Amino acid sequence: MQDRIGLILHGVTGRMGLNQHLIRSVLALRAQGGVPLDDGRMLPLDLCIVGRNAEKIEALARQHTIPHWSTDLDGVLSDPSYHVFFDAASTQLRSGLLRRAVDAGKHVYCEKPIAERFDDALAIALHAEKAGVKNGVVHDKLYLPGLIKLRRLRDSGFFGRILAVKIEFGYWVFEGDWMPGQRPSWNYRKAKGGGIILDMLCHWRYVLDNVVAPVKAVSCLGATHIPERWDESGQAYQADADDAAYATFELEGGIVAQVNSSWCARVRRDDLVTFQIDGTHGSAVAGLHRCVSQARVNTPKPVWNPDEPQTLNFYDTWAEVPDNQVFDNGFKAQWIEFLRHVAVGGPWRYTLREGAKGVQLAELGLQSWRERRWLDVPEIVP
Amino acid sequence: MQDRIGLILHGVTGRMGLNQHLIRSVLALRAQGGVPLDDGRMLPLDLCIVGRNAEKIEALARQHTIPHWSTDLDGVLSDPSYHVFFDAASTQLRSGLLRRAVDAGKHVYCEKPIAERFDDALAIALHAEKAGVKNGVVHDKLYLPGLIKLRRLRDSGFFGRILAVKIEFGYWVFEGDWMPGQRPSWNYRKAKGGGIILDMLCHWRYVLDNVVAPVKAVSCLGATHIPERWDESGQAYQADADDAAYATFELEGGIVAQVNSSWCARVRRDDLVTFQIDGTHGSAVAGLHRCVSQARVNTPKPVWNPDEPQTLNFYDTWAEVPDNQVFDNGFKAQWIEFLRHVAVGGPWRYTLREGAKGVQLAELGLQSWRERRWLDVPEIVP
Amino acid sequence: MQDRIGLILHGVTGRMGLNQHLIRSVLALRAQGGVPLDDGRMLPLDLCIVGRNAEKIEALARQHTIPHWSTDLDGVLSDPSYHVFFDAASTQLRSGLLRRAVDAGKHVYCEKPIAERFDDALAIALHAEKAGVKNGVVHDKLYLPGLIKLRRLRDSGFFGRILAVKIEFGYWVFEGDWMPGQRPSWNYRKAKGGGIILDMLCHWRYVLDNVVAPVKAVSCLGATHIPERWDESGQAYQADADDAAYATFELEGGIVAQVNSSWCARVRRDDLVTFQIDGTHGSAVAGLHRCVSQARVNTPKPVWNPDEPQTLNFYDTWAEVPDNQVFDNGFKAQWIEFLRHVAVGGPWRYTLREGAKGVQLAELGLQSWRERRWLDVPEIVP
Amino acid sequence: MQDRIGLILHGVTGRMGLNQHLIRSVLALRAQGGVPLDDGRMLPLDLCIVGRNAEKIEALARQHTIPHWSTDLDGVLSDPSYHVFFDAASTQLRSGLLRRAVDAGKHVYCEKPIAERFDDALAIALHAEKAGVKNGVVHDKLYLPGLIKLRRLRDSGFFGRILAVKIEFGYWVFEGDWMPGQRPSWNYRKAKGGGIILDMLCHWRYVLDNVVAPVKAVSCLGATHIPERWDESGQAYQADADDAAYATFELEGGIVAQVNSSWCARVRRDDLVTFQIDGTHGSAVAGLHRCVSQARVNTPKPVWNPDEPQTLNFYDTWAEVPDNQVFDNGFKAQWIEFLRHVAVGGPWRYTLREGAKGVQLAELGLQSWRERRWLDVPEIVP
Repeated sequence: MQDRIGLILHGVTGRMGLNQHLIRSVLALRAQGGVPLDDGRMLPLDLCIVGRNAEKIEALARQHTIPHWSTDLDGVLSDPSYHVFFDAASTQLRSGLLRRAVDAGKHVYCEKPIAERFDDALAIALHAEKAGVKNGVVHDKLYLPGLIKLRRLRDSGFFGRILAVKIEFGYWVFEGDWMPGQRPSWNYRKAKGGGIILDMLCHWRYVLDNVVAPVKAVSCLGATHIPERWDESGQAYQADADDAAYATFELEGGIVAQVNSSWCARVRRDDLVTFQIDGTHGSAVAGLHRCVSQARVNTPKPVWNPDEPQTLNFYDTWAEVPDNQVFDNGFKAQWIEFLRHVAVGGPWRYTLREGAKGVQLAELGLQSWRERRWLDVPEIVP
Repeated sequence: MQDRIGLILHGVTGRMGLNQHLIRSVLALRAQGGVPLDDGRMLPLDLCIVGRNAEKIEALARQHTIPHWSTDLDGVLSDPSYHVFFDAASTQLRSGLLRRAVDAGKHVYCEKPIAERFDDALAIALHAEKAGVKNGVVHDKLYLPGLIKLRRLRDSGFFGRILAVKIEFGYWVFEGDWMPGQRPSWNYRKAKGGGIILDMLCHWRYVLDNVVAPVKAVSCLGATHIPERWDESGQAYQADADDAAYATFELEGGIVAQVNSSWCARVRRDDLVTFQIDGTHGSAVAGLHRCVSQARVNTPKPVWNPDEPQTLNFYDTWAEVPDNQVFDNGFKAQWIEFLRHVAVGGPWRYTLREGAKGVQLAELGLQSWRERRWLDVPEIVP
Repeated sequence: MQDRIGLILHGVTGRMGLNQHLIRSVLALRAQGGVPLDDGRMLPLDLCIVGRNAEKIEALARQHTIPHWSTDLDGVLSDPSYHVFFDAASTQLRSGLLRRAVDAGKHVYCEKPIAERFDDALAIALHAEKAGVKNGVVHDKLYLPGLIKLRRLRDSGFFGRILAVKIEFGYWVFEGDWMPGQRPSWNYRKAKGGGIILDMLCHWRYVLDNVVAPVKAVSCLGATHIPERWDESGQAYQADADDAAYATFELEGGIVAQVNSSWCARVRRDDLVTFQIDGTHGSAVAGLHRCVSQARVNTPKPVWNPDEPQTLNFYDTWAEVPDNQVFDNGFKAQWIEFLRHVAVGGPWRYTLREGAKGVQLAELGLQSWRERRWLDVPEIVP
Repeated sequence: MQDRIGLILHGVTGRMGLNQHLIRSVLALRAQGGVPLDDGRMLPLDLCIVGRNAEKIEALARQHTIPHWSTDLDGVLSDPSYHVFFDAASTQLRSGLLRRAVDAGKHVYCEKPIAERFDDALAIALHAEKAGVKNGVVHDKLYLPGLIKLRRLRDSGFFGRILAVKIEFGYWVFEGDWMPGQRPSWNYRKAKGGGIILDMLCHWRYVLDNVVAPVKAVSCLGATHIPERWDESGQAYQADADDAAYATFELEGGIVAQVNSSWCARVRRDDLVTFQIDGTHGSAVAGLHRCVSQARVNTPKPVWNPDEPQTLNFYDTWAEVPDNQVFDNGFKAQWIEFLRHVAVGGPWRYTLREGAKGVQLAELGLQSWRERRWLDVPEIVP
């Protein structure tokens, strides 16, 4: 077994890449001695960060005492002391970068989505499988305490037979005129890869597949509710990408998931995203961290009385699902799993093929919107 | 002008007919002297209740000192001292009853839906129009304080441009084995006119048309989540009607409404039904009685941070919309409007034609479910 | 473009000059590398502090490692390596000092009021304009989070048409006998430039002009409610300056502002100063930091009933206006704006001419008090 | 001494006349046996209600078992069995009615204002004095628990020397379009005697004179902030009367009262009207019922720190002034005082002459607005 892991990090100067992947995951692992293995050993990490802007990348390396940095990706890829290539840069360049890394014999790990189009996504997944390299895609939401608790409830049989799922995601993203917006302007421009369907349906695919049941069919309506926004420099621009997605999914077993994703909605619920699962024996509602449940024996029997204000408080009848563990940063937890998979062959589910499924669902969602009909989700056969 | 109103009431022995129509509306009006007119006069009511079961109907008449009762509908319809026929009996017989009343020259008023099929619904509406009688259908939800407040907000310009609507309706209806169900069993049987789509899409049509904007297209997925239930006598039966409806509507002006109606969901929200409207200048969430609003200047700018539990409380940022008036019982308020319309020609929007629109939407919802696609809602041209 | 800013600071040994200008603004900027420019560069600051008391000034320089200090103002003013002169010393000497700095070719920035008399204030403003130097006056209250939020509300159209403004300022300043006073004794002596009208009407001018609408007319009544006070050394003295001002202003557009400024009032409100703006579509009340709003749809309709204690809570019907941004120290934020204006010509509103307007209003307030009548505020024509 | 009081009531069909005077005062006194005298006896009341509309007045008499009613005022006035004439009808007719009653030898009591013009008001006061009849005007606010408590505090010496008074009165009166207005439309029409100055300055005169100190001078600015309103029948009309009054008063002893009266302001304070009195030894703030006080030893010494949100809660530092008695309805309490004055010569302050003072102040307020200056309030010399 290898005694260290050489790790190339690309695209870690952006907000997510820097904070979640570099600082909170990889550097945090380095600081604690490396990747913890089952036998108690720690596998050290050797890092090299790569980017186009030498000045910026050098400054970052110096700031975090990262020994190696480069602007020459091919040079670094040809160095056999590195085993893994990671990318968190733009979606548009991702599959090309992964292909170069695979061809150089590296294991690959990356942010989602793995491509803007499903055929590209599938091609790079198959290419990596054929090359025999280990491969993975970030599935961060599965590591959120809220979703970990939902899986706990499902695995414990709490729900009985699951009937339906309700996901509400989003918040008001300010237009940018009298109050600066809180998301990058490219999110609202089609030509720059923006749009909430491409962004969020990738997430909903792996969340539903892994927390509830496999997604079988989709009906999706997109909308561009706010057609004019103001960018980071205060300039008005035409926002032509979809900023809300109204989707319904059929899952295996007759389960229905209704999913509301919107950057144009004000929030009256427990968290920025909430997941409700209703089953014959119980229901649960999870946010990012907390989760509450209601067993059938605790279910109130309300009376519909339009003459009197409701006297039941429909929040009080739910019970908190306790943490009962310390939750590590989700990105870091997934890094540990992937690096163990690379180093000692540990179990691993979140391959590029799984990542391609997310792109597949997003693409079907966009097609469903255009064609105004339900679309089945085809199995990916090798 | 007539100096009294003769009123035939049919089908007021059921729960809604008895409580809301007979007791809380018609008898309450009689007790306060009749229908209040604009000039301060009160128009007295003369009542006759009609039903098939003589014993039951006589007992009801005696209990409430109603002077006239009968089991002979045609006899009563031929009596010129009655001006208005009202029906709250079963949907399946409704259009036939209305037709007999119209043919007898009576003005007609009834519960919804006015028929199980749209062509029947439209036919009886056109028949009443052609006969020149005044006609109306119950639109009770529009008289709920929560929806009155939403209309107030819309009319005051509070929302700016309305973007989207989210309706969540329903609660857990017990299967009936270990805990008796709280709705009649016919609701869950296709052959008896059951099904949540037929029941609720009639409501959503008039709510959306009147509180937000006209409905233009529908996509609807039904489900029968609970296939076996136990009836009023404790007998198991096959529940084959839809018990949940996952619908999306397109409204005039690009507005999208996502509507979740379910008898198989546990409630974690402010009320048994909640209506959220999001607009450029503000949002509001209404239940049956209360309504809260959030103007854009009060909209929080949350940070998505998966590492920390959410510190913002997304309920505290909403402000109560005050009553600022005394709300009468909604059924009674609509009775007053209809009877004024009959007696002195007061304004009236909720005709049988409007009622037919509800049946139209329900029928399109069922068709959309079968055909797995969006359907446009055709204009009803005379 | 210049690659550094040489800055002379005069009168920064007093409470405000030391804490707000020297420590929290200028030294904080030096610590973060200088003045941040739009292109990401930082413009370094070179500091020299000047005062009459060599010992005091040297100690201050040493304590904060300020490289240059002096008691010879003319010597420093003749040094071409300094670009900007700032003064926070006494009002009575200010216009003379500014004139010397302007004549030496320096840009000038200073505390308010810029003079005790309007003709002096206008003269120094015109002198600086004619000399072509950049010039500015502290308008600190405009940078308070509470007032920033009020401007946000106005700019977002929240108020509809603004009708009226209510400002309540002040608190109980102890007389100094059994409890030491919390303000300097010169504030209560006419001969030393004291008086609340001169102090506060300068503020109300720029607050109203910039947050609401230009001030057009004034009616002001002053009072010396407490004629005897005890000074810093415990000596009784005759307090002959006004310690309360009861002013009403007419603003452009028919808006009325009623303003209560008092050092002889006990505080029952949200903050030491509160600003209420009432408009057709909504109202807001801001303190120094927080701001609450009430849209017209949330406006209660109270019933005047002298027989029953009020059941409405008139505080609960207001909604918090969230921060949605991080507020920097207001003095520092204004320093950055002024120094960018000096270095790269950035936008700047708060010139000496604007400062003269404050003195103008204070002077008219005093005249209105003497003459017991309303006075129009003349336009300042160049 | 007379053994009963014969009482003619005119204009008690309106809201205030009916509820406060007839039902809650006179009928309540009759129900408890009459007017309680100091010696424990009860002086019975004989009532006659008078109005123009026979049908209405008869119905009212029957409903409350009032033995006598009439439409012939002169007839009733000539009946020697009646001792007192009371009027709560329209202001415009009041002085004429009072004159007829005085000429018929009746004692007179009435609502405020006693006339629309000061010369009329003074004339009728002098006429009643000359005729030697007892006379009175309603001064209801003085009987509010809040103001009774303020008087208690003043009389106990709590305030030390009173320095200043701050009155805030008003609330948002809806325009009447999307939400019906809550005040009669004549209040907003000049030609019908509307206007807040005429309405409220009458009150402020007697409140200040009796609770604080005599009013010596006035400066008042009126405004018509909302120029279009909708009346009781939903018709738009031009609102030309003043709907806000910004007044400052000088009281005896150098006390200043700043008074904000507005029907166009949203309420953020303890009650619909609040009275703050600041004195050297303490301050108090009263609403209609409650009153809180702050003695100088409880006065906080806040620090003005623009960098940190205020940490002091400026509501918590006040102490409740307890009821310590049962407060009777204020209108009834004043009725008892007046009728005792009539029957047994009890003490009485609130004569027509006092009522004339209210009209005087309102008239001076309107003149001050027109002339844009302070006006002294002349003494009324007999």
